[in-house]
Amino acid sequence: MAFNDRFLKACRREPVDVTPVWLMRQAGRYLKEYRDIRAKYDFLSMCRTPEVAVEVTLQPVDRLGVDAAILFADILLPLEGMGIDLEFAKGEGPVIHNPVRSQVDVDKIRVIEAEEATPYVAEAIRMLRHELEGRVPLIGFSGAPFTLASYIVEGAGSRDYRYTKAMMYEYPQAWHALMEKLAEIVTRYLRMQIKAGAQAVQMFDSWVGALGPMDYERFVMPYSKLVMDNLADENVPRIHFANNASTLLELVSKAGGDVIGVDWRINLDIAWQRIGYDKAIQGNLDPIALFGTQESIEERVKDILARANGRLGHIFNLGHGIHKDTPVENAQALVEAVHRLSQKQQ
Amino acid sequence: MAFNDRFLKACRREPVDVTPVWLMRQAGRYLKEYRDIRAKYDFLSMCRTPEVAVEVTLQPVDRLGVDAAILFADILLPLEGMGIDLEFAKGEGPVIHNPVRSQVDVDKIRVIEAEEATPYVAEAIRMLRHELEGRVPLIGFSGAPFTLASYIVEGAGSRDYRYTKAMMYEYPQAWHALMEKLAEIVTRYLRMQIKAGAQAVQMFDSWVGALGPMDYERFVMPYSKLVMDNLADENVPRIHFANNASTLLELVSKAGGDVIGVDWRINLDIAWQRIGYDKAIQGNLDPIALFGTQESIEERVKDILARANGRLGHIFNLGHGIHKDTPVENAQALVEAVHRLSQKQQ
Repeated sequence: MAFNDRFLKACRREPVDVTPVWLMRQAGRYLKEYRDIRAKYDFLSMCRTPEVAVEVTLQPVDRLGVDAAILFADILLPLEGMGIDLEFAKGEGPVIHNPVRSQVDVDKIRVIEAEEATPYVAEAIRMLRHELEGRVPLIGFSGAPFTLASYIVEGAGSRDYRYTKAMMYEYPQAWHALMEKLAEIVTRYLRMQIKAGAQAVQMFDSWVGALGPMDYERFVMPYSKLVMDNLADENVPRIHFANNASTLLELVSKAGGDVIGVDWRINLDIAWQRIGYDKAIQGNLDPIALFGTQESIEERVKDILARANGRLGHIFNLGHGIHKDTPVENAQALVEAVHRLSQKQQ
Repeated sequence: MAFNDRFLKACRREPVDVTPVWLMRQAGRYLKEYRDIRAKYDFLSMCRTPEVAVEVTLQPVDRLGVDAAILFADILLPLEGMGIDLEFAKGEGPVIHNPVRSQVDVDKIRVIEAEEATPYVAEAIRMLRHELEGRVPLIGFSGAPFTLASYIVEGAGSRDYRYTKAMMYEYPQAWHALMEKLAEIVTRYLRMQIKAGAQAVQMFDSWVGALGPMDYERFVMPYSKLVMDNLADENVPRIHFANNASTLLELVSKAGGDVIGVDWRINLDIAWQRIGYDKAIQGNLDPIALFGTQESIEERVKDILARANGRLGHIFNLGHGIHKDTPVENAQALVEAVHRLSQKQQ
């Protein structure tokens, strides 16, 4: 089987035979084979055991025929070893028992080498490259500095980011010191992944949509840009995905990345225009669209492809992670439809 | 004391002495006098007891000096008497025990007269008009058809609106039948409020930001438009607020309303341009900005006023409801700053 490099080509805005497609959170609970493994391990143990991480990373490649694999991991893993007391509480998502809210708290954060903090991530990547040889490229990833900050300041998920924003407004110096450390942590973590064999990296700014443009520009953008700039010499595509950030797109694009990911709240043509055609774009089907009929899914694929309009540099994806209750046959139908319908258009 | 009508004037894009300001959820837990009452009643009992609803509605008018009062009520009250089994579970928000997910469920929804379903709302408004005479205007409000639908389909709050969207995609006929009923329910509920004395009405589409533009246009906009059109002959300003809907603004504006509310995720000048200058605009300070220093609040007020640029028809507000932990002195400082700084600009 020949190596399928259409994902990497699209990242570089080179011609492709059909539009490449992968799905955020494609290694996940909608797959029975994933749930079978998940029943035996808690979430962090899965991340920390390379054999398990490798197995679940490969599952969607086999089942869906996607054009890229993405390492199974949690976006908070870069925090390992930094003195952050992270736990995945049952049914609650991540909980951090020592939230960071002052300069003193920030000073306590250790910035250590990623190889020392998360050696199992590098190991999983090396194993995956071996397993995937001759198939599809492997994407590494990390949470973005703001998204990591929002977790460690709130101590958990949040709806309003009250403590995070209060820290920006009340203790801007402590905030900037925190973001500087996190930008370095994310840089090291992604560099380690690239060194281990990741052929592209995605930075997820999952919660940045809570911010208005002024706050993003002042308190976040410089640090996202720092990570992107730091990785510029690595010669692998950098994907920058900011969720629910339609009003920040120009700034996200300015912060950098070879590919800008967009959610489903904006039409892809409008998004690309605002991002700039000098960058590739990734997106942007509503993950919940996969609960519709296959006809309705196909209609939406056609709409998104029409908005991409054959322009070089479109990677098809969902606008957010695939939902755990998604019928797997609909995910398969999506991948098939993207390939079939994008071929017809040429 | 002379009647303060600058809010109503701004709704009609008439000249005002200073920019009017009120705060979404201004009758709320950030006020000690509210918490004292809340300690004695559960939430729905407060809504259903006109004397209590009147008292908490007046509290922020006294404490903050805002330019409008808004009836204390829940956005789900229009569902009362419709056969929807609504409960406010402790710490969980609204729970609906018989979620609506099929045509059979939709058929069971009763559309009755609002006076019969929620007489206490009309009574509270009549009492408030008496109490407020000579002070500030009174705003009535309702949840929008989509936001009501999302609650009764999900059965509770949601992060992904999986059942709501699945109903649109899988059973579009049942969805449209549901939205038609809800548009009629919202129309009757708001007409009743106007008849009882509400001098303006706001329709809150709190959760519509979960939708992409295609879904909004197809499954939601016609029904929001229906409500707005139905109320056109009532001769009171209609405010239409769609939360987290920056990418839908043109469509929201097309659906109608004399004033379009915007959240803080978009700069006000860009938002107004997209809405169209033939409509007034309401917004758009991040509610969490009220956790900052008074200097930082003032900086943001200046920025928003500068973006409004003295154009007729700006009502200052938060971009979402005020947070329960907001320091009341910061809310007071905000109101004072809006009045002072908007006067200087003229």
